[in-house]
Amino acid sequence: MDTALKLKKLLSELESLKPDTFGKDFLLTWEQDFDTLKSVMLIAESLQCLHRLRKPFKIFDSGLAISIFRDNSTRTRFSFASAVNALGLGLSELDEIKSQIAHGETVRETANMISFLTEVIGIRDDMYPGEGHTYMLEVANAVTDGYREAVLAQRPAIVNLQCDLDHPTQSLSDLLKLKDYFGSWEALKGKKLAMSWAYSPSYGKPLSVPQGVINLMTRLGMEVCLAYPDSYDLLPETISRAKTFAQESGGSFSIVHDMKEAFAMADVVYPKSWAPMAVMQERTKLLKAKNTIGLKDLEQHCLAENARHKDWECTEDMMRLTRNGNALYEHCLPADISGVSCAQGEVAGSVFDRYRLHTYQEAGFKPFVIAAMIFASKVQNPLSTIKGFI
Amino acid sequence: MDTALKLKKLLSELESLKPDTFGKDFLLTWEQDFDTLKSVMLIAESLQCLHRLRKPFKIFDSGLAISIFRDNSTRTRFSFASAVNALGLGLSELDEIKSQIAHGETVRETANMISFLTEVIGIRDDMYPGEGHTYMLEVANAVTDGYREAVLAQRPAIVNLQCDLDHPTQSLSDLLKLKDYFGSWEALKGKKLAMSWAYSPSYGKPLSVPQGVINLMTRLGMEVCLAYPDSYDLLPETISRAKTFAQESGGSFSIVHDMKEAFAMADVVYPKSWAPMAVMQERTKLLKAKNTIGLKDLEQHCLAENARHKDWECTEDMMRLTRNGNALYEHCLPADISGVSCAQGEVAGSVFDRYRLHTYQEAGFKPFVIAAMIFASKVQNPLSTIKGFI
Amino acid sequence: MDTALKLKKLLSELESLKPDTFGKDFLLTWEQDFDTLKSVMLIAESLQCLHRLRKPFKIFDSGLAISIFRDNSTRTRFSFASAVNALGLGLSELDEIKSQIAHGETVRETANMISFLTEVIGIRDDMYPGEGHTYMLEVANAVTDGYREAVLAQRPAIVNLQCDLDHPTQSLSDLLKLKDYFGSWEALKGKKLAMSWAYSPSYGKPLSVPQGVINLMTRLGMEVCLAYPDSYDLLPETISRAKTFAQESGGSFSIVHDMKEAFAMADVVYPKSWAPMAVMQERTKLLKAKNTIGLKDLEQHCLAENARHKDWECTEDMMRLTRNGNALYEHCLPADISGVSCAQGEVAGSVFDRYRLHTYQEAGFKPFVIAAMIFASKVQNPLSTIKGFI
Repeated sequence: MDTALKLKKLLSELESLKPDTFGKDFLLTWEQDFDTLKSVMLIAESLQCLHRLRKPFKIFDSGLAISIFRDNSTRTRFSFASAVNALGLGLSELDEIKSQIAHGETVRETANMISFLTEVIGIRDDMYPGEGHTYMLEVANAVTDGYREAVLAQRPAIVNLQCDLDHPTQSLSDLLKLKDYFGSWEALKGKKLAMSWAYSPSYGKPLSVPQGVINLMTRLGMEVCLAYPDSYDLLPETISRAKTFAQESGGSFSIVHDMKEAFAMADVVYPKSWAPMAVMQERTKLLKAKNTIGLKDLEQHCLAENARHKDWECTEDMMRLTRNGNALYEHCLPADISGVSCAQGEVAGSVFDRYRLHTYQEAGFKPFVIAAMIFASKVQNPLSTIKGFI
Repeated sequence: MDTALKLKKLLSELESLKPDTFGKDFLLTWEQDFDTLKSVMLIAESLQCLHRLRKPFKIFDSGLAISIFRDNSTRTRFSFASAVNALGLGLSELDEIKSQIAHGETVRETANMISFLTEVIGIRDDMYPGEGHTYMLEVANAVTDGYREAVLAQRPAIVNLQCDLDHPTQSLSDLLKLKDYFGSWEALKGKKLAMSWAYSPSYGKPLSVPQGVINLMTRLGMEVCLAYPDSYDLLPETISRAKTFAQESGGSFSIVHDMKEAFAMADVVYPKSWAPMAVMQERTKLLKAKNTIGLKDLEQHCLAENARHKDWECTEDMMRLTRNGNALYEHCLPADISGVSCAQGEVAGSVFDRYRLHTYQEAGFKPFVIAAMIFASKVQNPLSTIKGFI
Repeated sequence: MDTALKLKKLLSELESLKPDTFGKDFLLTWEQDFDTLKSVMLIAESLQCLHRLRKPFKIFDSGLAISIFRDNSTRTRFSFASAVNALGLGLSELDEIKSQIAHGETVRETANMISFLTEVIGIRDDMYPGEGHTYMLEVANAVTDGYREAVLAQRPAIVNLQCDLDHPTQSLSDLLKLKDYFGSWEALKGKKLAMSWAYSPSYGKPLSVPQGVINLMTRLGMEVCLAYPDSYDLLPETISRAKTFAQESGGSFSIVHDMKEAFAMADVVYPKSWAPMAVMQERTKLLKAKNTIGLKDLEQHCLAENARHKDWECTEDMMRLTRNGNALYEHCLPADISGVSCAQGEVAGSVFDRYRLHTYQEAGFKPFVIAAMIFASKVQNPLSTIKGFI
């Protein structure tokens, strides 16, 4: 479709929504009503159209965006950098090691100290169950207080760049790819998505991607099937929430312990490794206790446990089980590709290669999703502001 | 007061001053005449008003600001990042480890090599007595030469982000907080400020904060009382300068070795740890000699020495000694708060908490003080330029 | 000459050229036809004039420039930062350690993941013979694919910030200094340039500077004499290419193994250390094999070998051999200066000091050369765009 025409359609759809985003943070998709989610995604697609039309969409004359990465990142780091640059902000990373934070200052203090001219704070904190989201709330509350007490002239929006519970910039990108691939949100109703654990020679991968996916796709009437070997559980509340969402949307949510069962007749497969919740919790304890030997033992134990499930690989045989043998393959990247990034991993080289382009497009939504989250929080009337950029 | 009205008053006060700032660096407050200091502070307050009114104050279309941090920093790092962004510059940090500087090139060379399109260089170098200020002068002279010899098309302004002698962006922020709290500069005359050493479980904190405070507040006719346990001396020249300033301004300057005496009837208290000058000098020697054992010994010795003065804590009892028991508490942050960031430290948790907001506002002046220093150095007529932004 | 007048002359010269730069990368000078090289240099000089006239030359409203430094850098790092800032881009550095690249993802993937809103990627990868240029081609091909496949809405231009083969931003800066010094490109015809190895107490310096110099200056009809102690060979293809270029341009290219012979009657001298190609190749093997002992041995062996050639120093005596005893001294900086950055090195302190300013001016072209490479690749009609900035 012609980009200008597509943009026009997106804006007309945006017109009918009543989102609740102005002045709000984006921390968890399940806290947002569906109009809000749709609105953020429509803004994201609109900004992508503006970019393709080479039309700038700066909403700030100046101001800082600050990122706090408590875990490694390439995609999200550059997506955030791109998004805030396009909106007119300068980027500063808070490196907690370089700073004086070691001195023992409080989160409340740091949050205010970095925010005097700051419009956005993006945070990745995904390694420790029970911590990442809590930390984001602490920062959010601190700047709310600072703004109310006139320490800050503006309240920075907080954007979740992956926490222990959710990875909303990823799951919304995943969903936008599905919308693009199948044509519309309506087309997703009844489609089967297999969110499946897959083998990886590494360990300790966060739970937020599968949790984010099952807690978002169930809201669209999809048939979401979560698959994992016994003991690779996700957080219980994400499971019960997925059930509720499925019920409300007229979709379904099921759990199986067999990759083949999950892949059978699937329209979309998302094979991705994660660590069992119990392991993540144990690991957090050991890390805090600086128990190096315990950590080594845990890693050995987990890698051995992982290795028992090497058959959980998205092979060509596995793909043949899906609808017409050509389900869409999704991944948050980087994937552990057998014969490419490891001897054996989450996905066969030939499968990944066939869907490589699709995964790149999936990732390509992320800068615009992040920009849209900021846009929705900072602009009183997104629709008319976007129209002004055309 | 209404922000627009406040701005108007600030600008009318600015009109009467004859500062000498254009094309100059800001390295030490005591090198600047009083009109210049006042002018920089009035510009800082004006820029803060513009920010609150959501009026941008970019003075550059493009250009770099470079920061050189030879010691950790959060507040100053982000204040500098915010300030230069608001003025329209891009920020690059010179990381002396990542660069080729290890090869042994001279300061003169590096200073020119990073300055071809650079408008500002901000430097923190506060750890070694006799070095930080000297280094800043070297950089300043290098770019003066480079500009004179047409290597550089513009001469970058040098901003002191804390040296061994002074911490001007901090002390001017401290002073702006006092002006705001007591209502005017005139109101500060005769007010007693206790700049007091306080116990900290860490060691090696620089001297520049207390030195900066006693060499600035004495210029406003304040009764400045410096308190510290025997042997925690500051640099002698900062002591004699404080005496002279006090005499000239009609205030006073005294030294006591008892925190209680300092706090008695004080209007402002600034309890803050620092290392004895002699220790800092010894430490510098050992660091240069890479004498690891000597450094460990010195640290042990100093921590033990510090621990003899645990009663130098800003407790509720101590605060009751001040005027009406409610002197203003100032601190450059982060403070060592008993029961929060350490078991016992500079200030009791309850005292800090009562003044927390004030310390945040104190810190909140810093981005605007830095911006004002650059503004004053780079803009020929600050008054009319600010008026143009309204 | 008056800057405005100089700019006018540059633009009139630019008018007559038919460069082939739009949409192209700048990786190796010898891949570019002479009109293209001249065009990039004229644009560089024009942008420098604009900067001196305080006229901004932003060609982007927003967008990222990404730098990938696989080796240390000060000059080039800040030149790149300055250039992209002046053109209107935000800078993000890809730190391969901080990112998730350790996970084993492919260059193709990373290149696309960082490029969704990226206009330029600058790369330094100079340590391993056979690798740096290859890596740049991989990145270039990846983003070409991504653009063709509509993963990217724009194709980022790739700029070589030093590879194993060439250092084009350096050699073009060297050449611009020669043009400025001798008055015109025509004036360089017949001038003798001695590109000579020189002693350094360090080891492992890349070959790209001498290779870049002999493969560029031979295209201007210069008499290029390459001098080095036996065994300090450059890559064979760079030697044969230099011969061909010299033949085509009516200049000459010779190799000698005696610094004095090279300096005799030279108009320009470029004394600079490098490691023998064979050593660089051996070092690469050992690094890949993580053979720490082998690396230590190689370093010892090479430093000993280097030390046999301490007489390869650009001393006052050596300079007296040059034309009128006052050849122009060039260097990419930082130089190993005897008595300054090392006990004995590439150049005597008194010689360096006499030419210090010239080397700074030489380096001063680099930000504009980088900006010109981007400008030439991204702007359809550089001439009229520059005229629009005046």
